Amino acid sequence: MELIYVLDILGTFAFAVSGALVAADKKFDLFGVIIIAFVTAVGGGMLRDVLIDAHPINWIGDLNYLYTIFAAVLLTFLFKSKILPLSKTLFLFDTIGLGVFTLLGLQKGLFYHLHPIIALIMGMISAVFGGVLRDVLTNKVPLIFEKEIYASACLAGGVTYLALNHFNISENLVFIISASVIVIIRVIAVKFHLQLPKIKDDLFGKS
Amino acid sequence: MELIYVLDILGTFAFAVSGALVAADKKFDLFGVIIIAFVTAVGGGMLRDVLIDAHPINWIGDLNYLYTIFAAVLLTFLFKSKILPLSKTLFLFDTIGLGVFTLLGLQKGLFYHLHPIIALIMGMISAVFGGVLRDVLTNKVPLIFEKEIYASACLAGGVTYLALNHFNISENLVFIISASVIVIIRVIAVKFHLQLPKIKDDLFGKS
Amino acid sequence: MELIYVLDILGTFAFAVSGALVAADKKFDLFGVIIIAFVTAVGGGMLRDVLIDAHPINWIGDLNYLYTIFAAVLLTFLFKSKILPLSKTLFLFDTIGLGVFTLLGLQKGLFYHLHPIIALIMGMISAVFGGVLRDVLTNKVPLIFEKEIYASACLAGGVTYLALNHFNISENLVFIISASVIVIIRVIAVKFHLQLPKIKDDLFGKS
Repeated sequence: MELIYVLDILGTFAFAVSGALVAADKKFDLFGVIIIAFVTAVGGGMLRDVLIDAHPINWIGDLNYLYTIFAAVLLTFLFKSKILPLSKTLFLFDTIGLGVFTLLGLQKGLFYHLHPIIALIMGMISAVFGGVLRDVLTNKVPLIFEKEIYASACLAGGVTYLALNHFNISENLVFIISASVIVIIRVIAVKFHLQLPKIKDDLFGKS
Repeated sequence: MELIYVLDILGTFAFAVSGALVAADKKFDLFGVIIIAFVTAVGGGMLRDVLIDAHPINWIGDLNYLYTIFAAVLLTFLFKSKILPLSKTLFLFDTIGLGVFTLLGLQKGLFYHLHPIIALIMGMISAVFGGVLRDVLTNKVPLIFEKEIYASACLAGGVTYLALNHFNISENLVFIISASVIVIIRVIAVKFHLQLPKIKDDLFGKS
Repeated sequence: MELIYVLDILGTFAFAVSGALVAADKKFDLFGVIIIAFVTAVGGGMLRDVLIDAHPINWIGDLNYLYTIFAAVLLTFLFKSKILPLSKTLFLFDTIGLGVFTLLGLQKGLFYHLHPIIALIMGMISAVFGGVLRDVLTNKVPLIFEKEIYASACLAGGVTYLALNHFNISENLVFIISASVIVIIRVIAVKFHLQLPKIKDDLFGKS
């Protein structure tokens, strides 16, 4: 589907820029920046494909991912000071990427005849693992473990997709509705600083 | 084999709880806790299956792993203050898991016609890699590299299994004896604070 | 090819020693040292083989890698104080390993009919990922992201290989010339402290 492919590339671009910005902040050299941009952008899909034995894996089977990442790094390299004020645009791309990656991963899992729960997990791995790798390689505690209802948004969107899939709705529409769920939840969560509950010592006892 | 499957699930449960406790200490949100519990519990078997090309990999092929992990996280979430006093029980589960995971991984390696040394390494990867992942994702130096004769216990149990396998003993008995070797060594090691030697500067020269 | 196999083993040995030295500095116990030496030495080829679905993967298909690593750890364990003065020798081995691993990975990629760009990336993954894993597992920011034109040397050698491959030159000669490019660039880079440019805030704006 054309639209989804375009969104996939846009998401890849946004994830690559986010990786490049983190790496640049850490004073990595050009190669380090490329590597971090690369794993941020394709790390999730790569792990998904290795786990479900879907070869050739994402970036090996389609060179456009690599070209997109190279373009993203080049632009970050040249225009870093100009990019930062665009952080709202970037956040939008990144959020679109999150939605698209989740649903593409979920679809791929269903296509490989995985149980829906497993397919859902594959969708979430596709969406969030790149960011986890980015943080591990830059020696930070992965952001996802501490902030934002990042994964919850993916989960809600994935569940929406699975639910709507049972009805007689066009696949494109199901895709767009589910992706919107992800985008909206994330935007609201970031705007209102929503957080998931934490395991507190004092839930049933004293801390 | 029924008994071994029960032990496998118990071990998965114990590893998941140990992951959840570490993640909760780090103030991760619910999703973070689930992810860490998940990788701690199935990370070792997952890496083993990817390396030996055994698809579907462990948690994709059997949903009971996921259900066990969800149960473990839920119980940790609800009863954290009650669980900590049970640390001896947990330690026992964890140690049983260590023994069972080592031997299951070893068996799987032999089943895939790997050289016994490679199968032994697969057993050890199954047992210890989950904990390594847990520590890397929570940004700690993996515990296994610094404390306890953790891996040595697995190695000894695995070698026992391979040795006894040459004799005319029922497989269940071989499994139980070898698992006991792992459990006993680990318990003794923790009790008496045994450690493996370190590479010292002054072994042959001055430091 | 005999010569390349010998160089492969020498490179494995050098990478294993480098891993063992880092782990020993971190006061890891014997098992930790073996694991770090192992992942440093075979981690790159292992990831390459998993990504391109080349089973059995490197160290599973050829036990000589394991034996080489055990020998390297044993020697490091016994002679640490004697090895450090040999750091120039080690650096040479390490650099040879870098060149050989890059080109072997690239060759394997081409053999699996990957696009030359992907094959080139496989060569670089083979060469550098072991060191990245070593650094992640010892909780450091991977060296490659901050220092030395490590990856650039691999890239230049790989491109040389691909370019020369179009001419009517014996494969061994192409291999040796390309490996020499890698070795020479790295030696020069280390000697003159060359670095790749970094993404600076003030390239187009103010910092």
